[in-house]
Order: sequence, then C-alpha cells, then structure tokens
Amino acid sequence: SLVEGLAGLLRPRDFDGVAVTITAGPTREALDPVRFLSNHSSGKMGFALAAAARARGARVRLVAGPVALDTPVGIERIDVESAEQMLESVLAGPGDLFIGCAAVADYRPGLPAAEKIKKQEARITLELERNPDILAAVAGLAQRPFAVGFAAETQDLVVNARNKLRNKHLDLIAANLVGERAEGRGFNSDYNALHVIWEGGDDALPLMRKSELAHRLLDRVRARMPNGEKV
Amino acid sequence: SLVEGLAGLLRPRDFDGVAVTITAGPTREALDPVRFLSNHSSGKMGFALAAAARARGARVRLVAGPVALDTPVGIERIDVESAEQMLESVLAGPGDLFIGCAAVADYRPGLPAAEKIKKQEARITLELERNPDILAAVAGLAQRPFAVGFAAETQDLVVNARNKLRNKHLDLIAANLVGERAEGRGFNSDYNALHVIWEGGDDALPLMRKSELAHRLLDRVRARMPNGEKV
Repeated sequence: SLVEGLAGLLRPRDFDGVAVTITAGPTREALDPVRFLSNHSSGKMGFALAAAARARGARVRLVAGPVALDTPVGIERIDVESAEQMLESVLAGPGDLFIGCAAVADYRPGLPAAEKIKKQEARITLELERNPDILAAVAGLAQRPFAVGFAAETQDLVVNARNKLRNKHLDLIAANLVGERAEGRGFNSDYNALHVIWEGGDDALPLMRKSELAHRLLDRVRARMPNGEKV
Repeated sequence: SLVEGLAGLLRPRDFDGVAVTITAGPTREALDPVRFLSNHSSGKMGFALAAAARARGARVRLVAGPVALDTPVGIERIDVESAEQMLESVLAGPGDLFIGCAAVADYRPGLPAAEKIKKQEARITLELERNPDILAAVAGLAQRPFAVGFAAETQDLVVNARNKLRNKHLDLIAANLVGERAEGRGFNSDYNALHVIWEGGDDALPLMRKSELAHRLLDRVRARMPNGEKV
C-alpha cells in the first residue's frame, strides 16, 4: 500500500550487508505417500520477518515449509517439506542472523511406508522418532550466527520460553501464546503479540499486525547483535 | 472466463432440483493444540465438483476441511476440521446425491491433549483409534442418497477401488493414482485422471483439468442415478 511504501522510506537500512536466514511455516512428516504429521502454522510471521529484514537492507534466504503465501519481493525462497530437508537447507547458508520461525514437527514416523498403508484395526500405535532440532543445530555451529528462536506455548509462556532460550543456547527468543487462551492471534491470523526474551531481560510487544511486529522484533535483534546499538 | 461462461450455457440442467452434498479437502486430527495428523489434499477436485453440480442446476452443500480455496458462487459451504465434525455436518443433510471427495484421516489420536505436549524422549508411540467412515455411514442410511466415493491409491488402482466400492456399498467410485507413479496429477495439481467404477462396469477418464473432469464424472453419475438416462 501507499502507507507501507512511505513507511518503508522511513525505515532504517540497519541490516545493510547482513545475511539473514529465516525458516517459516510448518513441516510435514510423511507416514506414507498420503498421510502426514504436521503443525498449525500459516507461515505469515516468518514471511513478514523476511519482508521486513529485506526492507532494512538484509540479504534474505527464506526456507519455507508448505504454505499458501506469495514470496516477498527480493527474497531467495527455498521450499521444503520435512524437518530434515529444512535443516539441510538451513545449514547450507545459516547467515549472520538466523531466525527459526518455522513450526518444526518435533517427531516423525520411524520409517515412512512406500505404499499407502492399509489398516483395518480399530486401534494402532505409531512409532515416532525425534526430529533434528534445527535451532539447537544452528546455535551449536562453530561459526554460529546470531540465533533467534520462536516458542509457541499454551501455558507458562515466559518460563517455558526462557528454558528454551537456555537449553538451545539462543541469543533471543520470541514467545507467543497459542491455543484457546490466544484468541485473535497466532497461527492463521494477521495479528500476534510476542514476548521477547534474552539473557538478562525481556520485553512485551502487544497485539499488532505481524508486518509491524516483525519490525519491532528486528529492532530488538539489531540492538543485541554484534555491532548493534543498545536500545 | 468467457469460454467457461459460454460452455456453461451449453451445459445441461440435468441436476435441477437435486440436493447434492460434497465433502472436500483433508481433515485434521488434533494431537494437541499445536500438532495434528492429516492427509495431502488441496480440495480442488471437490470444489470443482461443487461448481459443476451447481452449474447443472443442483443445490449444493460443500463440507470442506481446511483448504486455501474460494467458495464457488451459489454454494452453501460448511467448514470443518476433524472427521467427526465432517460426519456430523454430512449427516445433517446428506442430500439426494452424496460425493465423498474429502481425504478423511482414517485414524485420530486416542485423546488429544489440552496443553501442548512436552516430550524429550528420542522415541515415542502414539495411540491412534479408527475414525468414523463417512462414506460407509452415508451409504448405510435407511434413506440413503446415491453414494459416490473416491479412492486414492498408490498401487493396484482398479482392484483396490472395486473392493472399496463393495465393502462400503457405494453406487460408484472414482479412483485415482497418487504418490510417485502419479506425476502431474492429483493432490495440489489442477489436473487429474480418474478411473470410474460401478457394479458391472468401469470407464477410464484420461488426464484433464479438474473443472472438466468434474463434468465428465457428473455425466456418469447422472446416467446411473435413479431417473437418470443410460449413457
């Protein structure tokens, strides 16, 4: 829109020359050629972050799970399905700043079947094995980027998110409420609220459009990245 | 388009006064507020059938799982998530003709968790229980509509589909190939090929646009429905 265009002229170019890699959307873990395990995620927050970082001068790689969204202008987009494919694409270029915004399935079926499974039983058990943890893998690299994670929680938002920040050795985490207590935000909405947490501090960003929330989050990231200014 | 508009004028109004209920898209079976089990399905075939039936004079109820598609003009659309919700909406008005085009998840987690499940284990097992069979439920009604099913198969297309026709007591089944052997068709494509099967006969519809395929399938249905003419 015109307003967004004018706002863009006023944005700082404070990510000039920064390579940013962002994951967005869900992953799908195949049980067989027809069935899969997945997570709720429209990809809108990750795509908004990609557009915002680009508007501020970054070179952006967007590694996207299956979503129904157009690619923002000037972005390199890589489409993937599974967590393993997403990890591989991320590690091929984790950038100076990595933002793990995708809702990665934490488990996958042990061995997907080549043909559609025919089952008649009233009850079956599905063996699942843990997926790679993309955020922890990136944060564990010898030449690690500034690592930003997301935490979707249904309860104890700040406590759960701060644990995740520490366990995965992240630099910053953006936590949001999902499920019944999170009316009008998250998943498929254009609006969300985030609680941004880092070692030694935190900041609540109230409910707003994801396009604006993306900029507010990048402000916090820029301030804490090496060569960034303190807010 | 203009061509479709002109073609519409030439379509027979051979479903005038017929109440048609169609299911489309996947279902999602919640593990918890974040995770779900689902099937590949864009919903395009079911939506094309709804538009085609409407163009031929039918009153159409479209019971749709989560898809990213606009509602065709003149259609009553009911959005659902799970197989149980879909069954309930179908039974509220199964119509004179029922076309079960949705990719219904055949299993669901035994008891979805109210809060997001926190798991650290390398392997877990998921207990699944069988979902209601919507097609079989409709075909088993005392006042049953003409019942048309779909069969997505990765192998032995006609044999598997004919078994499904008999086991579920359907009047007609439309089978299509999915997975690696089905390049350029099915799931998210605008094109598909169908093998239409009924008791005592069958007919192969070659690869074509789903919008046209819908009409070719309705031709076969009309010919076999009570008060229909034989092809």
